[in-house]
Amino acid sequence: MKRIVTMGGGTGQFTLLSGLKKYPVELSAIVTMADDGGSTGLLRDELGVLPPGDIRQCLIALSESDKTLRELFLYRFETGRLKGHNFGNLFLSALEKMTGSFDRAVKKAAEILRIRGKVIPVTLDNVRLIARFPDGRQIEHESNLGKEKITKEATFFLIPPPIANPEAVDAILGADAIILGPGNFYSSLIPNLLVPGIVETLKKTSAKKIYICNLMNKENHTSGFKVSDYLETLSKYTNGDIFDFVIYNNQRPPQELLSRYAEEGEFVDFDDVLSKKNFFGENLLSDTLYEQKSHDPLRRTLIRHDADKLAKILMELK
Amino acid sequence: MKRIVTMGGGTGQFTLLSGLKKYPVELSAIVTMADDGGSTGLLRDELGVLPPGDIRQCLIALSESDKTLRELFLYRFETGRLKGHNFGNLFLSALEKMTGSFDRAVKKAAEILRIRGKVIPVTLDNVRLIARFPDGRQIEHESNLGKEKITKEATFFLIPPPIANPEAVDAILGADAIILGPGNFYSSLIPNLLVPGIVETLKKTSAKKIYICNLMNKENHTSGFKVSDYLETLSKYTNGDIFDFVIYNNQRPPQELLSRYAEEGEFVDFDDVLSKKNFFGENLLSDTLYEQKSHDPLRRTLIRHDADKLAKILMELK
Repeated sequence: MKRIVTMGGGTGQFTLLSGLKKYPVELSAIVTMADDGGSTGLLRDELGVLPPGDIRQCLIALSESDKTLRELFLYRFETGRLKGHNFGNLFLSALEKMTGSFDRAVKKAAEILRIRGKVIPVTLDNVRLIARFPDGRQIEHESNLGKEKITKEATFFLIPPPIANPEAVDAILGADAIILGPGNFYSSLIPNLLVPGIVETLKKTSAKKIYICNLMNKENHTSGFKVSDYLETLSKYTNGDIFDFVIYNNQRPPQELLSRYAEEGEFVDFDDVLSKKNFFGENLLSDTLYEQKSHDPLRRTLIRHDADKLAKILMELK
Repeated sequence: MKRIVTMGGGTGQFTLLSGLKKYPVELSAIVTMADDGGSTGLLRDELGVLPPGDIRQCLIALSESDKTLRELFLYRFETGRLKGHNFGNLFLSALEKMTGSFDRAVKKAAEILRIRGKVIPVTLDNVRLIARFPDGRQIEHESNLGKEKITKEATFFLIPPPIANPEAVDAILGADAIILGPGNFYSSLIPNLLVPGIVETLKKTSAKKIYICNLMNKENHTSGFKVSDYLETLSKYTNGDIFDFVIYNNQRPPQELLSRYAEEGEFVDFDDVLSKKNFFGENLLSDTLYEQKSHDPLRRTLIRHDADKLAKILMELK
């Protein structure tokens, strides 16, 4: 595997890229454009820009610039009118406003941060994520997703219907491997698959397709999911199972951590896939409990993947 | 003249540096730290940072990075909670908050912007400018200066009394020439001289000292000033005349422009210094009427110095 494409968003993709970049591979990160919460949501609303947050995390993960610049991109203002705004987001949004193009802004930021690889928005259209339930109810906007329970019967889509970024299509077609996840299932992974053309391209490419299952279920999103539930739900969006390999964690986090951080959700059970071919269970838990710094993109997740373990198992796939 | 130090702030210093950097000289810009209006003032109030605005302008003037990055530093947000904030100011303030040091932030920004020369805050202390009148009234803060008329009897000082930045002192001592102005007289020039140690160092250095007089008087600041009034007032802050050369403009701007932009103040008369030795009158007017772009630092001044004419007359001084 030489040319690797990751697909997702948020903390999960940051971790994955951080691990993979230690190997001599060509990396492209295809990134969700549905985020509209927090600093990103404010910028979308107030400046009319495309969502910078997930892109920023990938840029930092692949950056080979010095520590100060990388930390600056993660810096979050803590007081006044700027409170909650992330500097890297402001950077991307100012560049977008100035150049009139999110695409140019991402490329310029990539140059300044000296990234190894590519960071590719899955679409360059201004989209919002919608979940629709069989009874007609809708949850509008990604940032509202957690507010009520998402059932398996919900259907997700993007409005207005976007056009896939041609660079994303090219990256998928030219890849040796495509990795979906880890990441927030409905907020970060599915929105990539909802962009017309992406699933078709995933089916067309000769690349191996790998799904990395989350460690924890997210409350109101994937409550009660086992590994097989993730795959079953995925296949609804990919029109059938497309994955050659599935990677999951088989190590239960310490009970003390599970109960202390119960709000993060529940551990994902894997007994349903134990004997399945091409399903790889490993201890993927990070055993470092990082200090929660304001500029640490991982601060919101305490039970998380170990970047190096994740990269190692991926690089050993045949 | 090989090692040139400019001293001031704002648009004037930006113009001067832009002109001088075309010559093979070593440039150091010593910059006022008293600004507290606009975006800079908000950042000082809400984040407790040192004033980034004047520093940013000098960094841009000396930057050898590409146009996009320089323009980004000048970009001003136009909507939402970020309205009026200048991106370069946010950059410096985020770096300051993150590194805990304005000095380190300026040096890091200088590195990112690939500046030729040095940009040196006159002090690293958090100061405010005060004007006190003989009757005991005070105008507090630089940004309030224009609100009532400043008389020649006013006394200016900084609180709390700051310590001069040792790098500013070293730059003055090591210079071949020191240039004060052009720039807003009380807001940008005088605050540099109010930092204890700066005037003493100006007297100690063997550098030639040059004053560049403004083109226009500023209403409520220097109304009715002729060139000699500027020098007389300066000598109050330098304890006697310290300038080897005085440069002034001797070309009246077109009457149409003068009346159209009457709010910019009145033309500075120079008949009082016509026969004086080492006073050089030249046509220093810029005859380009720039489009007023939001990222143009000169947009607030329509009658202004020509950077190249200014640099040329300076480089010809013996």
